[in-house]
Amino acid sequence: MAVKIDILTLFPEMFQVFNHSIIGKAKEKGIVEVNAVNIRDYTTNKHKKVDDYPYGGGAGMVMASQPIADCIKAVKNNNKGKVIFLGPRGVTFNQNMAKELAKESELIFICGHYEGIDERTYKYIDMEISLGDFVLTGGEMACIPIVDSICRIIPGVLSSSESYTEESFYSGLLEYPQYTRPECFEGESVPEILLSGHHENIRKWRRLQSLLITKEKRPDLFKKLKLSEEDKKLLFKCQNKVL
Amino acid sequence: MAVKIDILTLFPEMFQVFNHSIIGKAKEKGIVEVNAVNIRDYTTNKHKKVDDYPYGGGAGMVMASQPIADCIKAVKNNNKGKVIFLGPRGVTFNQNMAKELAKESELIFICGHYEGIDERTYKYIDMEISLGDFVLTGGEMACIPIVDSICRIIPGVLSSSESYTEESFYSGLLEYPQYTRPECFEGESVPEILLSGHHENIRKWRRLQSLLITKEKRPDLFKKLKLSEEDKKLLFKCQNKVL
Repeated sequence: MAVKIDILTLFPEMFQVFNHSIIGKAKEKGIVEVNAVNIRDYTTNKHKKVDDYPYGGGAGMVMASQPIADCIKAVKNNNKGKVIFLGPRGVTFNQNMAKELAKESELIFICGHYEGIDERTYKYIDMEISLGDFVLTGGEMACIPIVDSICRIIPGVLSSSESYTEESFYSGLLEYPQYTRPECFEGESVPEILLSGHHENIRKWRRLQSLLITKEKRPDLFKKLKLSEEDKKLLFKCQNKVL
Repeated sequence: MAVKIDILTLFPEMFQVFNHSIIGKAKEKGIVEVNAVNIRDYTTNKHKKVDDYPYGGGAGMVMASQPIADCIKAVKNNNKGKVIFLGPRGVTFNQNMAKELAKESELIFICGHYEGIDERTYKYIDMEISLGDFVLTGGEMACIPIVDSICRIIPGVLSSSESYTEESFYSGLLEYPQYTRPECFEGESVPEILLSGHHENIRKWRRLQSLLITKEKRPDLFKKLKLSEEDKKLLFKCQNKVL
């Protein structure tokens, strides 16, 4: 059965972005079902309004509770998943969270807009996730990469040739440098070891490159690593120019 | 003159997402110009291929240097901006970076795909930015929120009524709770102070709420704050239940 993801938004047309690339294929194959539900369809306001001025004054508009609450109630008839609000107070999204959420068979995402949602909407929300420490025009902009990141881990979404276990962040390491044809591009050659056909040496070289790149670019990630005996040996040899 | 943003991608149709909402309006008003350029149009391969197997073996395909390099060269004829690659080795994006990039009049973004780009492409890249510590199907998924976040700071993109100086992260604080009509929603009333009309008390209450929410939800951000004398007084009074 397909993993079911309902996205509650004022801009459902933005999620046409999922008709392309890998998620688009997974939808076609029936592995994931991504529905964008228009919150505006659930407002009881006769002018179809979904927002109003903030109590206490201030710039911008606030999304009212009623349309969001009624939209959640309606979606819950066919989706028993966690209700996740994309907002700045949430836990910062990362690969572990993606892995956890990819185990769920149903998920509901709420995209806020304008100056935020009425605080009283929170009782309908199970979890808040933030994409990072920056301001976006709306929750849609966070929902797009988060749903992408979750979906690509769902079994069957990536073909067997698109392994994801060696990718950056998957094991807390950045990925090693990649090279493809031609062998020489603008005077720069592919490292000889990659042409050697010696699988074990290639594996070691790549592991070392991953360690070195992570150490240089993301010392915070490097500190968290549990280095294996082999890792320590590779780094030691490299420092002493043996490899 | 419009701020010019060129996005180099294999999936230009994904950027139709910017035809909606606030960025869509800014494009119509001529404040920003966002062009998606298809990297595939620049490949010299007769089958229009842009990727190939990685040297040294392994899963997935690697984007070749030639099409990206030639695409960058062509775009540079009309865009003298920084060349920014969206990749996992980059500096993690945040609001300060958004503010800095919003000062530029021209920017070029490169979206990678598959198992990454040939390492030798890096000589054409000025800067690498990462959206966060998670894996995406492609750079497009990072480019969408990053361009959104930058564009909304460009003067004229948000209307004067959509101030952004009080939003979450703008000053290192999370935003205070917002409420809009009705006064009572499902038995829960708006905090009385917001109905008082006393602007100075409302300002203080909101400031305190921002401090408390940041302290609870993001102790890491709270620690970095330089508390004003007023902030300290508000927090002291609150701990002692005076306010």
